[in-house]
Amino acid sequence: MKLNGLIAATYTPLDPHGDLNLSAIGPMVEDLLRNGITGLYVCGSTGEGMSLTSEERRKVAEAYVEATAGRVPVIVQVGHNSVHEARQLASHAQAVGADVISATCPSYFKVSSVAALVDCMAELASGAPDLPFYYYHIPALTGSTIEMADFLQRGGDQIPNLVGLKYTDTKLFEFQHCMELEGGRFDVVWGCDEMLLGALATGARAGIGSTYNIAAPLYLQIMAAFEAGDFAQARKGQSLSIEMIRTIGRYPFHPAMKAILEMQGFHVGGCRLPQGRLSPSQSDSLRSELSAIGMDFGHAASLSLNP
Amino acid sequence: MKLNGLIAATYTPLDPHGDLNLSAIGPMVEDLLRNGITGLYVCGSTGEGMSLTSEERRKVAEAYVEATAGRVPVIVQVGHNSVHEARQLASHAQAVGADVISATCPSYFKVSSVAALVDCMAELASGAPDLPFYYYHIPALTGSTIEMADFLQRGGDQIPNLVGLKYTDTKLFEFQHCMELEGGRFDVVWGCDEMLLGALATGARAGIGSTYNIAAPLYLQIMAAFEAGDFAQARKGQSLSIEMIRTIGRYPFHPAMKAILEMQGFHVGGCRLPQGRLSPSQSDSLRSELSAIGMDFGHAASLSLNP
Amino acid sequence: MKLNGLIAATYTPLDPHGDLNLSAIGPMVEDLLRNGITGLYVCGSTGEGMSLTSEERRKVAEAYVEATAGRVPVIVQVGHNSVHEARQLASHAQAVGADVISATCPSYFKVSSVAALVDCMAELASGAPDLPFYYYHIPALTGSTIEMADFLQRGGDQIPNLVGLKYTDTKLFEFQHCMELEGGRFDVVWGCDEMLLGALATGARAGIGSTYNIAAPLYLQIMAAFEAGDFAQARKGQSLSIEMIRTIGRYPFHPAMKAILEMQGFHVGGCRLPQGRLSPSQSDSLRSELSAIGMDFGHAASLSLNP
Amino acid sequence: MKLNGLIAATYTPLDPHGDLNLSAIGPMVEDLLRNGITGLYVCGSTGEGMSLTSEERRKVAEAYVEATAGRVPVIVQVGHNSVHEARQLASHAQAVGADVISATCPSYFKVSSVAALVDCMAELASGAPDLPFYYYHIPALTGSTIEMADFLQRGGDQIPNLVGLKYTDTKLFEFQHCMELEGGRFDVVWGCDEMLLGALATGARAGIGSTYNIAAPLYLQIMAAFEAGDFAQARKGQSLSIEMIRTIGRYPFHPAMKAILEMQGFHVGGCRLPQGRLSPSQSDSLRSELSAIGMDFGHAASLSLNP
Repeated sequence: MKLNGLIAATYTPLDPHGDLNLSAIGPMVEDLLRNGITGLYVCGSTGEGMSLTSEERRKVAEAYVEATAGRVPVIVQVGHNSVHEARQLASHAQAVGADVISATCPSYFKVSSVAALVDCMAELASGAPDLPFYYYHIPALTGSTIEMADFLQRGGDQIPNLVGLKYTDTKLFEFQHCMELEGGRFDVVWGCDEMLLGALATGARAGIGSTYNIAAPLYLQIMAAFEAGDFAQARKGQSLSIEMIRTIGRYPFHPAMKAILEMQGFHVGGCRLPQGRLSPSQSDSLRSELSAIGMDFGHAASLSLNP
Repeated sequence: MKLNGLIAATYTPLDPHGDLNLSAIGPMVEDLLRNGITGLYVCGSTGEGMSLTSEERRKVAEAYVEATAGRVPVIVQVGHNSVHEARQLASHAQAVGADVISATCPSYFKVSSVAALVDCMAELASGAPDLPFYYYHIPALTGSTIEMADFLQRGGDQIPNLVGLKYTDTKLFEFQHCMELEGGRFDVVWGCDEMLLGALATGARAGIGSTYNIAAPLYLQIMAAFEAGDFAQARKGQSLSIEMIRTIGRYPFHPAMKAILEMQGFHVGGCRLPQGRLSPSQSDSLRSELSAIGMDFGHAASLSLNP
Repeated sequence: MKLNGLIAATYTPLDPHGDLNLSAIGPMVEDLLRNGITGLYVCGSTGEGMSLTSEERRKVAEAYVEATAGRVPVIVQVGHNSVHEARQLASHAQAVGADVISATCPSYFKVSSVAALVDCMAELASGAPDLPFYYYHIPALTGSTIEMADFLQRGGDQIPNLVGLKYTDTKLFEFQHCMELEGGRFDVVWGCDEMLLGALATGARAGIGSTYNIAAPLYLQIMAAFEAGDFAQARKGQSLSIEMIRTIGRYPFHPAMKAILEMQGFHVGGCRLPQGRLSPSQSDSLRSELSAIGMDFGHAASLSLNP
Repeated sequence: MKLNGLIAATYTPLDPHGDLNLSAIGPMVEDLLRNGITGLYVCGSTGEGMSLTSEERRKVAEAYVEATAGRVPVIVQVGHNSVHEARQLASHAQAVGADVISATCPSYFKVSSVAALVDCMAELASGAPDLPFYYYHIPALTGSTIEMADFLQRGGDQIPNLVGLKYTDTKLFEFQHCMELEGGRFDVVWGCDEMLLGALATGARAGIGSTYNIAAPLYLQIMAAFEAGDFAQARKGQSLSIEMIRTIGRYPFHPAMKAILEMQGFHVGGCRLPQGRLSPSQSDSLRSELSAIGMDFGHAASLSLNP
C-alpha cells in the first residue's frame, strides 16, 4: 500500500459545551474532497484524539468513515497510553470500516528500546489484523527517541500489517533513509507541512498535515510546480505556507486552526483542555493578519498563489 | 485534611496473560496494613494507571476500596490525557467509596500555563466534588514545568476540593515553600522515597511511594530515628533505602518491584507494555543482590536495620 | 581533606565599563570573614569564570588569594571547554597559592561517558598536582548526566588529587550516596543553598553557595538550630532563605545578586554578557521587595531571623 | 556578500601528543581546493575550536589563512563562553587576514532572549569591524532556542557587519524564512550535509559541513544533478551520503572523521578530550564498512557515484 497526495489530519468538531458536534463532519469532508484531498487522518494530534474519551474517539471515527463513504482512505489514529485500550480502538476502527490504522507510542511511560516499541505496536496492530498499519512518529509530543529505521527493520519482521510511517519530524535524512529501506518496502508519509517542498525533492509522495484543511489549493500548487520543475514558483508557494503557519503559530496553534475553520463556516468550536480556544479578540486579529497575507474567508479552501 | 505516615503507591496485580488478577489485592492490603502503612495510592504511576483501560482502572479502584474497608484512606489517581475521561474516573471513584482523588495533568499536549493547569484540574476534580483532591506533580513523567506554588495559589481559589499535592520531585525548597503557603493551608505529601529523611527535616508528615510496599519497616525506622533526634540511625536507614533502590534501579524499575512482590508471595505478575517484565535470570540476580544487602524474602516487609 | 561550614561562591567585581575592578575584592573578603564564612570558591558560576578571559581569571584568582592571606581556603574553579586551557589555569592557581582547585566538565562537546569525564578531569587536575581537586557537578549548566558515584569510584583510582565534589543538584540521595562511598572517602560539598537544611539532615558538613555572600548569618542560624535539634527554628530560617531566593529569582539571578552587593556598598557592578545587569528601576523594586522580608542594607550581611 | 558552493568545515590536525600539527594543513587545503571546495570554515565544531586554547586557535587560523592564500574565503569561528575572549579572537582573525568571522553564542550561561543574543554578537563582531559576520546557529550544541528570524531582524539593525547565518539545524522552514527575510538581505548557509538536497530545493546556494572534507565530489554530483533537474540521480547521491554518515555515526563522529583523513594520508591525529580518538580496531572496522559502500582510500576525495 502507498498513500499519495495531500491527506488532511482532520479536526474534531465540538459544540459550545465542548461536546462532540458530529453534524459538522459531513460538510467538512465534502469541502476537503472538493479541494483535492486524497485521504483523511482521524483522531490524530490535530483531531485531539488523546483529549477525547474512548467512546468519543469511536464516534468520531465512525462519523468520518460514514461521511467519506469510501471515496478516499480513512486512517484512524488509535494511540493511547494504555496499549490495551489502543488495541480495542484498533478493533473498533476495523469493525466500522476504516481503511488504515495508525498509532503513536505510549508516552507517559517512555518507550526506551526498539524492542519495546515493536512489542507495543505489535500488540495494538493485532487488533485490526486486516488493515494496514502506519506507526505515527511525532517525537516532539511523545518524547520517544527511537530511530525509525531500527523500528521499521525490526517491526517489519514482527508486525504483519506494518506498512509504514507517518513521519512528523524535520530530519529529512531519516525520512529518506526510511523510504529507501529494503528497496522501498515501507510507505513513509511526510508530516511537516512547512517543509513539504524539501520532502518532495527527497522523494515524498504523500503528506499528512493539519494545514491541508485550510489551504489545500496552495499545497497542490507547490506540488504541481515541483513536478513541472518550476522551483521559483514552488518556493513561492512554500514561502506563503510558512508565512501562514507562522501567523497561526503566534496563537495557540490548534485553537487558532479551529477558529479559521469557524471563519470558513464550519462549526468546529474550540479545543478540549489543555488547549482551549481563542478569545473573540484573538480571532479577530488572527483573521486580520491572515487576510493581510491573502487568505480569503469567503469559501473554505482559502489560500493560494495568485495565477 | 492532612495525610500522615507512609502511604503505599500500590501495584496492580496482573495474571500471566497480562489481565487483572484482582484476587491478589486482598492479601497485599492485609500485609501493608500489618506493616504500618497508613494509606493507599491506587492507579498512580506505580499502579500503571495510565497503562490500564478505563474499565480496568475502575475495577482496580473498587477492589482496593473493598479490600481496605475503611481502615486507611484510599486515594484513587484518575489522571488521563483526556480530561473528560479523567472526570468520569473521578466520579466513579467517589461513587464506589474512595476517600480521596488525585490526578496528573495531561501530558501528550503539554500544559503550558498555570491557568491551563488549573482549568484542567478544576474540570476533573468537579467529577468528585465530595472528595478531597491532591494534584499529582511528577514532572519527570508529565514534562510539566508549572511551578507548584503558582498552581496552589490560583487553584486554591478555583478548585473547591483542592487540598494539596503529591509532590514527586527532588526540589525540597519548592516542597517546603508549598507546605508553608498561606499559613500551611495545603497538604503537601512527599513522593521521593530515597530522600525521605531530608523531607522529614524540612517538615514532611507523610510520604507516598512505591518502595513502602516492600520495606515499610525500614522507613518507619527512619521516621522513628528522626523523631528521636538520632540522625546517625536515620541516615543509616536512609542509606540502606538508597542502596536497595539503586539495586532495583539496575533493572527496569517497576517490573523489578513486581518481581520482588512475587518473591514475597504476592501474585502480581509483570508490568503492562511498554514496561514489560523481568526475565527469570534477571529475577534471580535481583534476588541475590537484594539478599546481599539484607533483604529477607521469608515474609512480606522484608528490609530493615538490625536492632 | 574535608571542607566545613559556609563557603562563599564569590562574585567577580566589574567596573562600569565591564572591566575587572579588583580593588573591590579586599573589602568583600573582610566582610565575608567577619560574617563567619570559612572558605572562598572563586571563578565558579557565581564568579562568572566562564565569561572571563583566561587572563582575567588569573588576575581574579590572584586577587582573592592575596586578600584572603591564608585565613580560609581559597578554591579556584578552572573548568573550561578546552581541557588544555583548564589545565593551564590549574597550574596557575597552584603557582599563585590557591589551596584547592575545582572544575566543571567541558559542555560544548558533551561528556558522554564516565571514562571520558575521568580522562578530562585527570588531565586538568594534573596541572595542579599538589592541590586537592573537587569536581564541580552542576548538570543544569553543563548538561552532563554522568552519575557522580560512578565518577568518584573510577576517578578515585585515576586522579591522584581527587578528593571530592561540589555537588550542585537537588538529588539528596545521590549526594548521600557519594558521601558514604568507600567508607566516606570523598568530601562532598552541598551546593544548593535553598535546600541546606535537608542536606544537613542527610549529613552535609559544608555548603558552597552564592547567597552566603549576602546572608551568611541567616545560614549560620539554620546550622546552629539544626545542631541544637530545634527544627522549628531551622525550618523558619530555611523558609526565609527560600523567600529571599524566590524574590531574587524574579530578576536575572546573578545580576540581581550583584545589585544587592552594590546596595551593601561593594563595587561589583553588573554581570558580563550574556547575563547583563539590572536596570535602576529593577534595582529599586528588588530593594523594596527584600526590605519587605526583612533584609537590612545598612551593613553587609543583612538577613537573619530576629532573636 | 554571498557564499557559494561547498565550504569545508576544516579539521585541526594534532600530533600524537595531542599538540597542534600545523604542517598537515597545507596538504589538506590543496586537496580540498583540487576537489572543488569554495571556502574554509576554521575552528568551528568540526575544527574543535572550543577544545583548543585561545593561543592555539590563533595559530590554526593563521595557518589556514596562509595556506589558502586568498584562493577561497577563510571563515574563522571565534565563539567562546567569554564574549570578551571571542572579541579578541575576532580582532586577531581580522588582523591576520581572515575573510569572514563567525561565532556561536555562549552556552554555559544560556542566552535567554533575542536582545541578549544580539548584544553578545554585537560585542564580539565589533572586534573585526571590517569583516562580514555570520552567526553560527547550532542549537544541538549550544542549547539556544532563540528563533533565527528574530535574531536577524534585530541584529540587522544593531550589528553593522552581520551578513547572515551558518544554519546547522534541520528546520528547512526556518532556513527558508531566514533566506527570504527583508527581500533576501541575509546570506543563510546550510549546515546539515545529509539534508543538502532538500536545502537546495528550498533555495540554498552554499553549504558548510564536515563531510565535504572527505566526499566533496559526491556532493558536487548531488548539486549538478539538482541543477540538471535529475532528481533520481540527486537522491541517489544524497542516499549514498546518508549511508556514509550513518556508517561514520556508529563511531564517535569527529574522531572517526579524523581517522578517515588519516587513511587518506593526512596527519590529523585524534580529537582533543572530551572526544578522544578511535582505537586501531575501530579504525579497521570503519575502513571496512566504508569500503563496502564504495569509499576509495587511494586518494583523498574518495566517495562518489559511479558514472
